[in-house]
Amino acid sequence: MDHIKRADRLGAITRILTATPNRLHGYAEFCELFGAAKSTISEDIDIIANSISRFAEGRVETIAGASGGVRFRPLPSKKRMRETLNGLCARLSQPGRLLPGGFVYTSDLTSESDAVWSIGEILAAEFYDVEPDVVLTMETKGIPIAMSVAQMLDVPLIIARRDSRAYEGSAVKINYIAGNGVDLETMALARRAVKSGQKALIIDDFMKGGGTLGGMVELMQEFQVKVVGIGVMIATAKSPVAKLNVRALMTIEELDEVGNRAIVRPSPYFAAKAELQ
Amino acid sequence: MDHIKRADRLGAITRILTATPNRLHGYAEFCELFGAAKSTISEDIDIIANSISRFAEGRVETIAGASGGVRFRPLPSKKRMRETLNGLCARLSQPGRLLPGGFVYTSDLTSESDAVWSIGEILAAEFYDVEPDVVLTMETKGIPIAMSVAQMLDVPLIIARRDSRAYEGSAVKINYIAGNGVDLETMALARRAVKSGQKALIIDDFMKGGGTLGGMVELMQEFQVKVVGIGVMIATAKSPVAKLNVRALMTIEELDEVGNRAIVRPSPYFAAKAELQ
Repeated sequence: MDHIKRADRLGAITRILTATPNRLHGYAEFCELFGAAKSTISEDIDIIANSISRFAEGRVETIAGASGGVRFRPLPSKKRMRETLNGLCARLSQPGRLLPGGFVYTSDLTSESDAVWSIGEILAAEFYDVEPDVVLTMETKGIPIAMSVAQMLDVPLIIARRDSRAYEGSAVKINYIAGNGVDLETMALARRAVKSGQKALIIDDFMKGGGTLGGMVELMQEFQVKVVGIGVMIATAKSPVAKLNVRALMTIEELDEVGNRAIVRPSPYFAAKAELQ
Repeated sequence: MDHIKRADRLGAITRILTATPNRLHGYAEFCELFGAAKSTISEDIDIIANSISRFAEGRVETIAGASGGVRFRPLPSKKRMRETLNGLCARLSQPGRLLPGGFVYTSDLTSESDAVWSIGEILAAEFYDVEPDVVLTMETKGIPIAMSVAQMLDVPLIIARRDSRAYEGSAVKINYIAGNGVDLETMALARRAVKSGQKALIIDDFMKGGGTLGGMVELMQEFQVKVVGIGVMIATAKSPVAKLNVRALMTIEELDEVGNRAIVRPSPYFAAKAELQ
């Protein structure tokens, strides 16, 4: 192999690190790839870390020690958080989105990779420290956001379903009380989806009465899995957010049934975090 | 702003390009960000393109002309395709995965971001040229793979559902004949999910009788949307793959009911593409 200059390495190292968010790469991987000394790679990493922190979003972190290495974590700047929250709230507050039952139409947002990425980035950043082993969601609409969070945390996404279906093999099925406090619902998860003793992060798109989230917490108890966090895209103003310790990105403040619209605002927690006035 | 050296730019440019696969970025974006001349940015891009093509996966492409710019497309090398296909087939051929009805347990694979990424990368590469406007899938198990393909193509993911639910607003619902040729099934899609005249790529996880895929094709006809491609993760040996012109990554060659396993192999098309012996 001919002599490889620094500029020839930086693009590939950046790509490799950012393609696997939150995953620790040993320096040896890069030393081998480029036939370079550890000190050289270490300097490359410093240059990349500086470039990304100044001009892009996210953070390159180096972990010292024998089991150490380098990893990239997506982390939105306050500016990007403000743009994301303001943009989402403006769109969700548009007339025509209010649906029967006080729900809001969000499927166009959660079908866009930009929106899903931005939401995932903000929610994931809340939970790096609690180091979940899996992300759990309930089918169907929460899946894109939950998958985005799982990708950024570099953990598997597991999906609870409304019924246990033949093609998932044996499953654990529970009954839970819906958010209206009356209806009995069921949810199921493949027995091999998660192991006892693991830590789960629950992510969903919408929280109203908290029934589905409560069901997922119960489901994890069945598996002897600890719930280390709950994050949702939108909660209604009356959601039991505090009771379940839920991080909600946005809140539906009021329903304007005449104008056929919901007033959606950044939640106080994330408004403060993004330094929104 | 102090003088910004080349090495200070390469990491950030790589991150920005690779965070938005298949999206065209004008040079002006980077000229502005770094206060640099177009010729300087153009040299940066050439260096990054070379670095990624030599040492990582994917391709940085420059498009000339007034509406031109630069984009990054994930493209697996033949080596990575071989590793992905061999790895997936080995895992899917393990004993214990055979489920009632000739299905194979795949939910652990489609819950892993690595596997989903690799599958998405291979399938997306088949369809860059037909330029779909949306990716369509049917809930639930195909969603992670479909979302991965949609991210790489930079288009929205739309999800057909088994029934039209209140919180998606008005929906188009169709009946279709299941793959067994007997049962009548329904699927629904929100009316605002896709516009007449757009082009759709259909992605799903499993193809047996082709009923669900056929239903999705019909559904797109209802919306006056052209289906420009169909890709699936696994097809059974008797699937009507040719009839529907489906690109299947892997094929279930036979079922070993005594050993409780399926023999899964790369499909001939992708085996040839990956230069598998």
